[in-house]
Amino acid sequence: MSKLLLDYGSGGKASQRLIKDIFVKYFSNPYLDKLDDAAFLQEIKPPLAMSTDSYTVDPIIFPGGDIGSLAVHGTVNDVAMLGAKPKFLSCAFILEEGLELDLLETIVKSMAEAAKKAEVFLVTGDTKVVPKGAVDKIFINTTGIGEVLVEPAPAGSRARPGDVVIVSGTIGDHGLTILSKRQGISFETEIKSDSAPLNLLIEKLVKNIPEVHVLRDPTRGGLATTLNEIAGQSQVGIFIEEDSIPIREEVKGGCSFLGLDPLYLANEGKLILILPQKYQEQALEILKADTLGQDATVIGEVKEEYAGKVVLKTGLGGNRLLDMLEGEQLPRIC
Amino acid sequence: MSKLLLDYGSGGKASQRLIKDIFVKYFSNPYLDKLDDAAFLQEIKPPLAMSTDSYTVDPIIFPGGDIGSLAVHGTVNDVAMLGAKPKFLSCAFILEEGLELDLLETIVKSMAEAAKKAEVFLVTGDTKVVPKGAVDKIFINTTGIGEVLVEPAPAGSRARPGDVVIVSGTIGDHGLTILSKRQGISFETEIKSDSAPLNLLIEKLVKNIPEVHVLRDPTRGGLATTLNEIAGQSQVGIFIEEDSIPIREEVKGGCSFLGLDPLYLANEGKLILILPQKYQEQALEILKADTLGQDATVIGEVKEEYAGKVVLKTGLGGNRLLDMLEGEQLPRIC
Repeated sequence: MSKLLLDYGSGGKASQRLIKDIFVKYFSNPYLDKLDDAAFLQEIKPPLAMSTDSYTVDPIIFPGGDIGSLAVHGTVNDVAMLGAKPKFLSCAFILEEGLELDLLETIVKSMAEAAKKAEVFLVTGDTKVVPKGAVDKIFINTTGIGEVLVEPAPAGSRARPGDVVIVSGTIGDHGLTILSKRQGISFETEIKSDSAPLNLLIEKLVKNIPEVHVLRDPTRGGLATTLNEIAGQSQVGIFIEEDSIPIREEVKGGCSFLGLDPLYLANEGKLILILPQKYQEQALEILKADTLGQDATVIGEVKEEYAGKVVLKTGLGGNRLLDMLEGEQLPRIC
Repeated sequence: MSKLLLDYGSGGKASQRLIKDIFVKYFSNPYLDKLDDAAFLQEIKPPLAMSTDSYTVDPIIFPGGDIGSLAVHGTVNDVAMLGAKPKFLSCAFILEEGLELDLLETIVKSMAEAAKKAEVFLVTGDTKVVPKGAVDKIFINTTGIGEVLVEPAPAGSRARPGDVVIVSGTIGDHGLTILSKRQGISFETEIKSDSAPLNLLIEKLVKNIPEVHVLRDPTRGGLATTLNEIAGQSQVGIFIEEDSIPIREEVKGGCSFLGLDPLYLANEGKLILILPQKYQEQALEILKADTLGQDATVIGEVKEEYAGKVVLKTGLGGNRLLDMLEGEQLPRIC
C-alpha cells in the first residue's frame, strides 16, 4: 500500500501528482480546476477571490517574521495574486497542549499587526487544542477573500508570447533563512525572511495596468517551480536570463555553502509579474517606487517555442531547461 | 509561565477566556467581536457569511461519518447558522508523512460526496505534508462563505423574551459515538454520529420564516454550552424543560454507563432555533417534513428573568442553573 512521502508537500512534481490524482479527481469543478493561487468566484458581484493556506513553519519564530505574520502575509498575497483586494481573513489555530501562553500571545499579536498593516480584518476564527504530541506546537490556517479589481483577472494561464517576466526583488531569502535557522547555521551577515504583504503594491499595479496577464508569488518550490507552473498552464515557453535574477550576495554564499539552488527556495514577499512588453517601463516604475519592489528587474520573456517549459540562459551563454523538481525534502518552510 | 491546557479547547468557560484574553484582545473588530458561528460581512452585496473550522477528530473514521464529511458538514452548518446559503468552501489538509494514500483517498472521496449533497463547491485548497510525529495522521481545515438570505441575519444576540426554543432532533449522538469508539466500548444498539448538512433545511426555514431570531448548532460543549452562549449574548434567561429534550434511549444508557451528561455532548447535525412563539407551529411543520428535523421539539422559552443564565426545569419539578462547564477534557471531538 503506498504511503505519503514528504515530497508530496514540496510544491514540486510529486505535489502536482497528489493534487491531480486525489484532490482534483474527486473535487473537480470549474473553480478548483484552474489551480491558481486563489479561486475566482465570478457568481458573486463584485467577483471574489478566495484562497486558503495552513502554516506549519518550523521554527515558529525566525529572523524577519514568525508563523503569525507569515499566516497573514501568505494568504493576503495569494488572494492578491488574482488581481484582488484582500478584505477579510479567517484564522484557525491548532494548538498543542502545554504550549506557553506567552508564546501564543506573541504570535497572535504579530498576526494582528500584520493584518493591520495589510489593511485586512480577521473576521472569524476557531481554536482547537489537541493532546501533547498530536501536533507540533502550533499550526495556523488562514483563508482570505477579496474583491477582484480587474477582469479578466490575472491568471497562470494568461502568459502570452511577447510578454515580459518581471520579479519584484531578490530571490531565496525566506527559504534560506528557515533552513539555516533550523540547522543552527549562522552567517556573517544576517539573512532574514522577506515575509511581507504584497497586496497594496498589487493594487497600485493592477489599477494602473489592468492588462497584467499573470501575478504569482514564488513560495514553496521557488521561482523555478512557479515559472514551470505558469509555462504549463499557459502552454508557452518562458525564457529567463540567469544573470538578471536578483539574489543577495549573502544568499548566494549561503546557498553555495549548503549546496542549494536559490531558484528553488521559497519566497514570502516577492511576486512574478508577466505582462505585455509595452507596459514594462510603467510596471517597473510602480514597483521601484515601493519598498517592497525596489529591486524589481526584468528577468525574461515569454515565447511560443518550448511550450510548457522554462529555459534558463546561463551566465556562460548556454541554455538549459529549468525543470520542476520531483520534491525537495524541505517540509515546513511555510 | 502559564501553559495551554486541553480545557482551553473544550468550548466551555476556559475556551471563552482564551478567546477573550488573547484573540479578541488583539484582533478586535466589529466583525469578529460578535463571536457568532460565522462572520457577517455586510460590506459585500449580497452580504456574506464566513466561517472557519479545523477538524482534528480522533478516530478519523467513526460510525456515521469520518473527518472528511465532518469537515464539510461542520463548516456548511456554521455558515448556514447566520441564515445564509453556503456556496463555496476552501479545504486545507495537514498530512503526516507515512499516511496511507488509500486512507487519504477515502477521506477525500467522502468530502466530495458530502459537498455534493450539501450543494457547495470546494473551490480552493492547500496541502501540507509534515514529518512523522509533527501531526497525528490528518487534520483538515475548511472555510466557507455563503450568501445571507435574510436581514437582519439570525444571531446569538437576538433571542427575546417570549421566544420559544426548539431543537431539531436528538442530542448527544455525535459526542457519545466518538467517545465510545475511542475508548473501545460498544453498545448493544450501535450509536452513530448525527453528522449532516443542515443548510438546505435552514434555507427552507428562513425563506418561510424570515423572523427567526437565533440559529445555532450545538457542537463542542453541547446543548448546555450553546444555550449559555446565547443567554449571555442576548442577555436573556433561557428556561428549558428537561423532560422535553429528545435523547435516544441508547444515548441515555451509554451516558449513564460512562458517567456523562448528554446535554454537554457535541452534536454535528442538530440545530437550536429560537423565534417568536407565533411561528412555533410553522417552524415545527417545516422541520418535521425533513428527515433531519423529524424529531424536532420545543424544549423551552426565553424570559427576562435570570438574564445571561440557562435554567433547567428538572423532571422532578425542581429548577437548577445549567451552567457552562469549565472545560471537559474531551479534545478532538470534531
